[in-house]
Amino acid sequence: MLDPLFKPRAVALVGASTKELSIGNVIIRNLQHYGYTGPIYPVNAKAPEVCGLKAYASLAEIPGEVDLAHIIIPSAFVPQAIEECGQKGVKAVIINSAGFSEMGEEGARLQREFLANAHKYGIRVFGPNCQGIINSDPALKAYCNFTFTFPKPGSISVVALSGGVGALIMQALDDLDIGQRLYASNGNACDVSIAEIIAYYGEDAGTKAIILYTEGFDKPREFLEVARKVSATKPILAMKAGRTAQGAKAASSHTGSLAGVDIATELIFEKVGVLPFHDEGEMVRAAMAFSSQPIPKGNRVGIITNTGGPAVIATDVLVDFGIEVPKLSDAEIARLRATQFPEAALENPVDVVATAGGPQFRAALDVMLDSEQIDCIYINFVTAPFTDTDAVAHEIVAVSRQRRKPLVCNFMTNLKLERFQKTMAILKTGEVPFYANPGDAARALGALVRYGQIQQREIGRAQIFAGVDRQGAEKIIAQVRQAGRTVLSATEVYEIFAAYGIAVAPWQVVKNADQAQKAAAEIGFPVVVKVDCAAIDHKSDMGGVAINLQSKAAVQSAVEEMQQRLGSQGELSFLVQKFLPGGRELIIGASAERGLGHLVMFGLGGIYVEVLKDVVFKIAPVTEVEADEMLAGIKTARLLDGVRGETGIDKEAVIAVIQRVSQLLGDLPMIAEMDLNPIMAFADGAFAVDGRIRLEEQKPC
Amino acid sequence: MLDPLFKPRAVALVGASTKELSIGNVIIRNLQHYGYTGPIYPVNAKAPEVCGLKAYASLAEIPGEVDLAHIIIPSAFVPQAIEECGQKGVKAVIINSAGFSEMGEEGARLQREFLANAHKYGIRVFGPNCQGIINSDPALKAYCNFTFTFPKPGSISVVALSGGVGALIMQALDDLDIGQRLYASNGNACDVSIAEIIAYYGEDAGTKAIILYTEGFDKPREFLEVARKVSATKPILAMKAGRTAQGAKAASSHTGSLAGVDIATELIFEKVGVLPFHDEGEMVRAAMAFSSQPIPKGNRVGIITNTGGPAVIATDVLVDFGIEVPKLSDAEIARLRATQFPEAALENPVDVVATAGGPQFRAALDVMLDSEQIDCIYINFVTAPFTDTDAVAHEIVAVSRQRRKPLVCNFMTNLKLERFQKTMAILKTGEVPFYANPGDAARALGALVRYGQIQQREIGRAQIFAGVDRQGAEKIIAQVRQAGRTVLSATEVYEIFAAYGIAVAPWQVVKNADQAQKAAAEIGFPVVVKVDCAAIDHKSDMGGVAINLQSKAAVQSAVEEMQQRLGSQGELSFLVQKFLPGGRELIIGASAERGLGHLVMFGLGGIYVEVLKDVVFKIAPVTEVEADEMLAGIKTARLLDGVRGETGIDKEAVIAVIQRVSQLLGDLPMIAEMDLNPIMAFADGAFAVDGRIRLEEQKPC
Repeated sequence: MLDPLFKPRAVALVGASTKELSIGNVIIRNLQHYGYTGPIYPVNAKAPEVCGLKAYASLAEIPGEVDLAHIIIPSAFVPQAIEECGQKGVKAVIINSAGFSEMGEEGARLQREFLANAHKYGIRVFGPNCQGIINSDPALKAYCNFTFTFPKPGSISVVALSGGVGALIMQALDDLDIGQRLYASNGNACDVSIAEIIAYYGEDAGTKAIILYTEGFDKPREFLEVARKVSATKPILAMKAGRTAQGAKAASSHTGSLAGVDIATELIFEKVGVLPFHDEGEMVRAAMAFSSQPIPKGNRVGIITNTGGPAVIATDVLVDFGIEVPKLSDAEIARLRATQFPEAALENPVDVVATAGGPQFRAALDVMLDSEQIDCIYINFVTAPFTDTDAVAHEIVAVSRQRRKPLVCNFMTNLKLERFQKTMAILKTGEVPFYANPGDAARALGALVRYGQIQQREIGRAQIFAGVDRQGAEKIIAQVRQAGRTVLSATEVYEIFAAYGIAVAPWQVVKNADQAQKAAAEIGFPVVVKVDCAAIDHKSDMGGVAINLQSKAAVQSAVEEMQQRLGSQGELSFLVQKFLPGGRELIIGASAERGLGHLVMFGLGGIYVEVLKDVVFKIAPVTEVEADEMLAGIKTARLLDGVRGETGIDKEAVIAVIQRVSQLLGDLPMIAEMDLNPIMAFADGAFAVDGRIRLEEQKPC
Repeated sequence: MLDPLFKPRAVALVGASTKELSIGNVIIRNLQHYGYTGPIYPVNAKAPEVCGLKAYASLAEIPGEVDLAHIIIPSAFVPQAIEECGQKGVKAVIINSAGFSEMGEEGARLQREFLANAHKYGIRVFGPNCQGIINSDPALKAYCNFTFTFPKPGSISVVALSGGVGALIMQALDDLDIGQRLYASNGNACDVSIAEIIAYYGEDAGTKAIILYTEGFDKPREFLEVARKVSATKPILAMKAGRTAQGAKAASSHTGSLAGVDIATELIFEKVGVLPFHDEGEMVRAAMAFSSQPIPKGNRVGIITNTGGPAVIATDVLVDFGIEVPKLSDAEIARLRATQFPEAALENPVDVVATAGGPQFRAALDVMLDSEQIDCIYINFVTAPFTDTDAVAHEIVAVSRQRRKPLVCNFMTNLKLERFQKTMAILKTGEVPFYANPGDAARALGALVRYGQIQQREIGRAQIFAGVDRQGAEKIIAQVRQAGRTVLSATEVYEIFAAYGIAVAPWQVVKNADQAQKAAAEIGFPVVVKVDCAAIDHKSDMGGVAINLQSKAAVQSAVEEMQQRLGSQGELSFLVQKFLPGGRELIIGASAERGLGHLVMFGLGGIYVEVLKDVVFKIAPVTEVEADEMLAGIKTARLLDGVRGETGIDKEAVIAVIQRVSQLLGDLPMIAEMDLNPIMAFADGAFAVDGRIRLEEQKPC
């Protein structure tokens, strides 16, 4: 439990300072300014008081109990300070000081040292090299942080790896007048992790929605499990920066971050239902909508506008989000006609025209609320100087308060004019999410709709196929390990595929041309002959593949030619395999991701993967729903249905292969990389015709 | 010249009103509030005065000359009012009233009527159904508009089809404290067009940059010609809404707009060097950077930050813009090491750390200014409570004022604190473009860089190929016209291609199997036989194409089979053509765009165009540079270079074909649609193997 951190009954500051511009002074003043309700104990060996508070020469001298201590002293003294915290019975520390793992080996040593002390006493460590926490609960008002924004109480909680971005988000929410609940930015995060904080927010009754900023995860699986649970009940809005190689480089250069260019984080978000953002401004503006509006049940919007162009812009953006703008029914249009000015446009968007007042807006809003075709409402409200704008605002608030359908408002006005400030105050007090331009308002509504879809998406559980020979596969791998290899031979690969019920084109391994001819005759022509030799990695480029061999003679000459050309590479075997022409070439791949398990990839083979990079990834285990999404998710998905008169492929079969691959990966975590490339898919069935498995290097004991 | 409109020496208001919430009152108060320096003449038959000004019963009674009159009376009376304007010698009118072409035939009739009166007297008409204009020139202060934002003088001029978006832009610029010069929103635009306004802004010495919002153009060619001239000297930042089908529908439903889903507008922007935006907020924030910063000479950014995460976010966004973040040289890093705190990160991004003050920021800025690897500067400036933030702001202003390299600043602060308000005021007074989050700042810098690239792009002039037989082609078309057809036969299509030097696979047209065999022998096997009959449009689907015929016998049976199957469709001819296997299938297409000329399309044929829609468009005439950009612009461009060991195609030949097609279209404007589909491209040469030309319907005389 992180209560001592987020709900400290008393706070001490080891390194409290009398210097106004120092962190050890700023935090005390922040606690005072915010109105912290517990005692504050500055620890300072020299000064008798700090910021008007009695200072103590050491923690030991503090008369009361201390839940939480800030540590704001040079890194070299931190291990000893933690020891003293333990002796005092401090339950949690926020180490603001820098100079630890982010600064090389000496810093890392100090970090290990203070952590050992913390563990000894059961102290939870937040940081080091961090900002701290804020709890806006009026009963506590804990501002254990050196930032400069003082959020009003509310229901949105923020957690950010980067203090800079955390402060930015907190400030942006405050600028939008959105209340906040808990805040945490944990820097190097050597003990208390983001996942733990998310779990804590999940259990905090006052937190209704969570904003997360990260640059990757140290322990992605831990985050995945926590986020899965929390996002089932509370929306998590998240942004992962370091999307680009240069961005990831910038991330890795700053405080203790472990980022690399990963796609895993976004895949985690997708898997567990975290709502992803690529723009911090958009995320914060979306939070405004989440803080007061219900989640839409569908993706159909009703647009009400008192000006033309902004409705066009909004429509473009909403459509980009996959939102529909349905035509209203004749009955609905008739209802509008009876209540709107003659110049009004009664289709959706409904243009109530610039002269519309409260009654016109309300009548249009009521039609949208009652319409079974409409799930959410977008409003353009320009404060035309010739209307009663307050009346319009009151009607919007009244409809918003019903919470029947979510709405957002693009409120276009001049806040230098007192008259319109009043109108804005009505919207604000009424908790209407409003924005200064149509694009921003539309994107906030788009986020609500997207979250509604995420909530309704049920990926199910991964299927466990019966009849799988796990022990057989493990035995093969044990043999490979024993031989000191990491790359499996073709035989081994195909046997493992077979053990998991993955159809492989019929094959035999032979040693020479005679055996090859015999194997080909048994398998049936046409066949492919591939060289099989651990030393030859790219057999196709080396001339080690001969396809579409129609006769024994052709098989013989193919084998002999390869023997001649490649014999010097090592001992050669040959794989004789049924040639399957005319199918659609697919690829399924897998790679191990540190701390997460495996990513599974699907795409069309050949130029589609090589040139178009048209592939889609999921985190294993992959469920049937997810496998189906993979097939639908490539840009060239239409090719799977057949174009130009071809029949489509057997999608069920491919979906089953993906799931069997997923089960295989779950059973055999030592696989570093695996390819089924290509898989040939036909109208009936799908067959792996080549494959590759590489194991992780074994760690020396 | 639009001087009477934008620089009126006296303004009359026909329809001046004593009612506070009416347009005829609001405009007078706006003129007064803004401080219009000329006389204002309210025209009102009943009231002796309006807004404290003497009112006149009619225009005729006004003692002085009137440059500009607002018309704010019911539409039925407008033609008579324009007549009276003419008699009074009024030079321009702004018709704010609605009820014209946007309201059906009766309105359109009134519009024709008042326009006839206006032409009789040489009156320029702005609107109808419009807002009006603003001129912020302190010597004039003309606010001929009913909006509610009062821009401070500046150098950015705005023109917007939609009044709602125009007002939004004006307000957003004002919220950012950016001065504005001229403003115009011309509603139905029955006379003064957006192109004319852009031309006027181009000549206006006080206008340094232009912001344009549109939903399409009535006369795109007029705009293209004007924008080409103006954008050569002044940046035009533009947004075209109605990108989506639903957005275009919303556009066409509002005031007098002529929008449809067009790609032509964005192509015009590209062709003439207008900087396009898809987000109104982003456009306005970019304008802030344009209003004070020089245009960067390249795409290499130096990033200075005093906080980690926001630099990661900024880097991601900058990289999305194609901006590079080069490593600094050893000498530059050494210079930084000498001036920065020990914890600073000296790579690019340079993290001066949170404790950095003015000297550290300035030293880092100076390194960036001096570096030959850096073209522009991005700054993250969070107002750490423990630093002299004013000193930092002063240094940023000093560097910005040098105008050596453009810079933008992400300024993260809490403006509720007086201390930081002061810091902000320093940036603002110093005309530093600053933003509230890293994404916004990075996108503003991205716009500057992109504009720099646009400025440097020189598309050249369209090549005129010699030896083209224009008269021959015109003669063919005249014959088609004479025959009452719009679709050309294969012979006609190929002859026109030949007339323009477009290589066509050798072909002959024959009537029967005997002739076909003879033709095939002359052309050389293998050949293709295609049915050629005006009644058969999709000959491939109808079984009217036989490919790869290797012998006379094959040709004979193909022809006879087609005769049997398709003979009932009409008189059949047969096209015998050289079969060219193994090339890369391409498509070049063209279509006439109302009022603009032709769009030329290029893509890979087959599934690439059908499934991937991977095509690129340009407006004819297409220059060599543009044709080259078309080849590079498709997503599958790499296929043109050859993959998997293939040789690439003869790009020069394809580029030449595109240019010849462009010349053909320029000479033959009556072509409605044309296809070269496919063109087979080889390592040496490219040959059209099928084509289609359709002419525009002839208008009845």
